[in-house]
Amino acid sequence: MAINRQIRLRSRPVGMPQRDNFDIVDAPLPHAKDGEILAKNLFLSVDPYMRSRMNEGRSYLPPIPLNSTIGSSTIARVISSKDASFKPGELATGYGGWEEYSLYSAPAVRKIDVKLAPPEAFLGVLGMPGATAYLGVLDFGRPKPSDTFVVSAASGPVGSVAGQIAKIKGARVVGIAGGPEKCRYVVEELGFTACVDHRKSTFAADLAHVCPNGVDVDFENVGGSVLDAVFPLLNDFARIALCGLITRYNDGEEMPGPDLKLILTRRIAVEPFIITDHRHRIPALLRDISEWVSEGRIKHREQVFEGLDHTPNALIDLLCGRNFGKVVVRLAE
Amino acid sequence: MAINRQIRLRSRPVGMPQRDNFDIVDAPLPHAKDGEILAKNLFLSVDPYMRSRMNEGRSYLPPIPLNSTIGSSTIARVISSKDASFKPGELATGYGGWEEYSLYSAPAVRKIDVKLAPPEAFLGVLGMPGATAYLGVLDFGRPKPSDTFVVSAASGPVGSVAGQIAKIKGARVVGIAGGPEKCRYVVEELGFTACVDHRKSTFAADLAHVCPNGVDVDFENVGGSVLDAVFPLLNDFARIALCGLITRYNDGEEMPGPDLKLILTRRIAVEPFIITDHRHRIPALLRDISEWVSEGRIKHREQVFEGLDHTPNALIDLLCGRNFGKVVVRLAE
Repeated sequence: MAINRQIRLRSRPVGMPQRDNFDIVDAPLPHAKDGEILAKNLFLSVDPYMRSRMNEGRSYLPPIPLNSTIGSSTIARVISSKDASFKPGELATGYGGWEEYSLYSAPAVRKIDVKLAPPEAFLGVLGMPGATAYLGVLDFGRPKPSDTFVVSAASGPVGSVAGQIAKIKGARVVGIAGGPEKCRYVVEELGFTACVDHRKSTFAADLAHVCPNGVDVDFENVGGSVLDAVFPLLNDFARIALCGLITRYNDGEEMPGPDLKLILTRRIAVEPFIITDHRHRIPALLRDISEWVSEGRIKHREQVFEGLDHTPNALIDLLCGRNFGKVVVRLAE
Repeated sequence: MAINRQIRLRSRPVGMPQRDNFDIVDAPLPHAKDGEILAKNLFLSVDPYMRSRMNEGRSYLPPIPLNSTIGSSTIARVISSKDASFKPGELATGYGGWEEYSLYSAPAVRKIDVKLAPPEAFLGVLGMPGATAYLGVLDFGRPKPSDTFVVSAASGPVGSVAGQIAKIKGARVVGIAGGPEKCRYVVEELGFTACVDHRKSTFAADLAHVCPNGVDVDFENVGGSVLDAVFPLLNDFARIALCGLITRYNDGEEMPGPDLKLILTRRIAVEPFIITDHRHRIPALLRDISEWVSEGRIKHREQVFEGLDHTPNALIDLLCGRNFGKVVVRLAE
């Protein structure tokens, strides 16, 4: 019998996930039914939102059931197809899981063009993170030329694209990242005006120093003490494009947020968004990003872990901020 | 020499204003210069935002300087005019102050039609509070038919109009008010589906009970424990139209707000607004409201204090929630 190795959620993490919250199991290889594709996963995605789905309770996505495979965007090669629009051997991206093979519903899968970028980039800048960044800038951050646009997790797959698009829109872009290496990358490679290291004890003062005209847009990926440093700098009519709160995904508790009186007196709009609420927009968003990538106006970086077994550790690294660029796991060539 | 009695800010209140934070002084009557009108104030307005302006520090309006007259919307009769568009004897509304006579810049003054409503209504439903309510419903709350729309301070000049307009837009409207008399008025006179008394110990449970499908719009005028009861009921994609926080105007401290993780996972948009940012919209907003008032579709209620000397107490009553309807002070017929 053909085998499909999978990573399943054994138990719900409390705080930071541990290796033993996950099982690696050998499952039987499934068969494609009408309208389905069986594909071999070449790359798996590792994203912060996955941690949220490991908790129970109400959120924007249902919790991952215990003993089921972790869902994940993937890059995959078609093995067998029961749909006229896909042939064996074709490369595509879809929503599969942390497993060697996934079954996909054909209409939900999109072919990729590796002449544009390496396959793993379709999980980052040319995938959901890139579309998230662009939607957040366009609809929620809405930077005007010469606005000061601050983005946290600035070297990550969402933050790096958000900042580069804000720059294209004429904003003055300031990044926030963890450690000197990421900050250097954000300024020297991505071309942000400045990048401030949130691990330094002088972080809040450093941020104020590089935002002499205050902050008009906060593209928020992090929360916690990072947002606490941005908040007092927000100008009247600032927008918080609330995309993620990675500091909060490990905790189950509620925590107080920023003062509503300041939000009112400064007319700061707090605008949360999730890309999957805007699915119909994704193709158009990715078309623009593809163009910018092919013109070299948007740069991207992936960090590749090798082998299915390392996937849980890749997530843990990501949640600790040890990643540098979009985290993917390579399963096969 | 003709005298103009004025109420001036003697000292900045700490917490609830006291009578001795105010001076009543006799000032000389000013003279209209070109483009100006001197008018006798018949009614003064008393509004929660005035308390905010008595504090120092950054807000959406500059602080009232010490020893200067408290600014206020007024209904006034023209005494002398250096502008061709106004004649002595005409009734108008403008931004004057807590004083017997004010000088007005003619372009900032609007004539009123007392056939439509009594003059004091032009400080409430047909003035800034009404326009605030309508703007907040249209642009920020955006209720859809059958949405549950909750509004706090529901018997007040903003809340009562907001709720009645939301009802016109097809929403299911639930009010929050202090005490059984106001709650009865909101349901029986204004026609809200329900009104919950925030002074009862069972308030949060009562509110949940009358919102079985959760809350889609919170039109927030109050903050504090009132908002704390609404927040857990908010549905995915709910909007908080953040109009006021009367519980907070007496305190100088910052206070934590609602959990951003809940705001993100439920995609709750927090949208603060101040009518003066949208000045150009006011005439059109008031045209619609005037029509609804003349058709009897929007009801209104004013509470009239008599005499300039009672103006500070009227504000204190308002901040304690002892008012019932739009608070105005009558100075003359």
